[in-house]
Amino acid sequence: MRLCRLEVAGVPRWGVIEGELVTPLAASPWDEVRKIAGAMPLATAKLLPPCEPTKVVAVGLNYRAHAAEMGKELPEEPLLFLKAPSSLLPPGGTVVLPRQSSRVEHEGELALVIGRIASRVNVSHALEYVRGFTCLDDVTARDIQHKEKVYARAKGFDTFCPVGPWLETEIADPQALPIELRVNGEVRQKGSTADMIFSVAELVAFISHVMTLFPGDLITTGTPPGVGPLRPGDSVEVEIAGIGVLRHTVSAA
Amino acid sequence: MRLCRLEVAGVPRWGVIEGELVTPLAASPWDEVRKIAGAMPLATAKLLPPCEPTKVVAVGLNYRAHAAEMGKELPEEPLLFLKAPSSLLPPGGTVVLPRQSSRVEHEGELALVIGRIASRVNVSHALEYVRGFTCLDDVTARDIQHKEKVYARAKGFDTFCPVGPWLETEIADPQALPIELRVNGEVRQKGSTADMIFSVAELVAFISHVMTLFPGDLITTGTPPGVGPLRPGDSVEVEIAGIGVLRHTVSAA
Repeated sequence: MRLCRLEVAGVPRWGVIEGELVTPLAASPWDEVRKIAGAMPLATAKLLPPCEPTKVVAVGLNYRAHAAEMGKELPEEPLLFLKAPSSLLPPGGTVVLPRQSSRVEHEGELALVIGRIASRVNVSHALEYVRGFTCLDDVTARDIQHKEKVYARAKGFDTFCPVGPWLETEIADPQALPIELRVNGEVRQKGSTADMIFSVAELVAFISHVMTLFPGDLITTGTPPGVGPLRPGDSVEVEIAGIGVLRHTVSAA
Repeated sequence: MRLCRLEVAGVPRWGVIEGELVTPLAASPWDEVRKIAGAMPLATAKLLPPCEPTKVVAVGLNYRAHAAEMGKELPEEPLLFLKAPSSLLPPGGTVVLPRQSSRVEHEGELALVIGRIASRVNVSHALEYVRGFTCLDDVTARDIQHKEKVYARAKGFDTFCPVGPWLETEIADPQALPIELRVNGEVRQKGSTADMIFSVAELVAFISHVMTLFPGDLITTGTPPGVGPLRPGDSVEVEIAGIGVLRHTVSAA
């Protein structure tokens, strides 16, 4: 099933996508998916980020080859950081390059949205707390990140978290997904979630032993190698097989 | 004026404190403060954290003497990090020391809650976006912080953000407030907000040029010197002149 959020007559709602149609839902799809009237063509729907997170938890250096390209040792435990929820950008949105940075980079990632309160869950049950998977670009001001070491500002500017276009709820194996990021049609990042150091289930379990996760919380799982700069006018696509394509553009401030 | 959040018949509400009484409000106190019936003694009210933040923004090394005790150079710009909103703890709550850390420390701080959407505001207008001031303990797993460099896990465990007991809206000069943290009655941290490197107004302006701030967002402004360990059974008080005393206890996991 594909779940999305969309604007209906100016009001944000959850929706379900079937073929080329999207139908609004009566409520959040945590316990049930109850349609209301008013199916509309997906092509004309105004999609929103497919979640309303109380927090966005991200993981650094979770692909071996990306750790190598950043000159970092492999972490023994997941390295957590938080992105500001105010940085969320809907599918098709525009990342605005802030004046404070002279090098902003893309990081295409597999992300997931939590569907049930998760506290101290075991790895073997962790995927039961995931409502669905989506694509995310963990946009990063690399110069600020290198200077400050902590990531909150470098990764927290408004528009720095494009996410979507929807949640795919039926992913047989989240550790077997090809992932690719293209800029202006050229492949920049290419990998497979098979190369993650910590699996999705391990990440959800680990994070839930630190902080309680709530329905709607967004977790992004790290980026494969090939990160590189974004420039005004760029058109970016993050494609994950079985989920879809997240598109965004880039502009100067 | 003193604004608080409290539980009324199981429902969280805003309230206004007058003398020894607290009166629930009809709605969030951003635009107006409209009382509803049902004043109750403050002494028996169940207070909650005095905000519902979409994000908690914190600042590292914002007092000269604390930077020195941590062996760090003074930052040229505010060093931002985010605390998970799930770490919020109400006044009188209990910080639970996680098994993953062997050294958890207190950091008493002046915090503030945003009252109006703030994006790219000037320093000269920044305080107009602040709804009120409160006390906060930025509890930190120091061993994890030192090991990971990024702060999200070290400062993001559940219960690691005691805050309250209320918002004081009339603070003539937020840069002239004595601040003290006591553990079991013994003074551990003592300072004045006059010693901040970046003022409250400078912090709000700086943060608002990175990320849009929303009503209810919580900003904490750094800690004076004297940070030290917390142990099971400890009783902690953060006192800021003109605001009040935030109390919390500490227990093992």
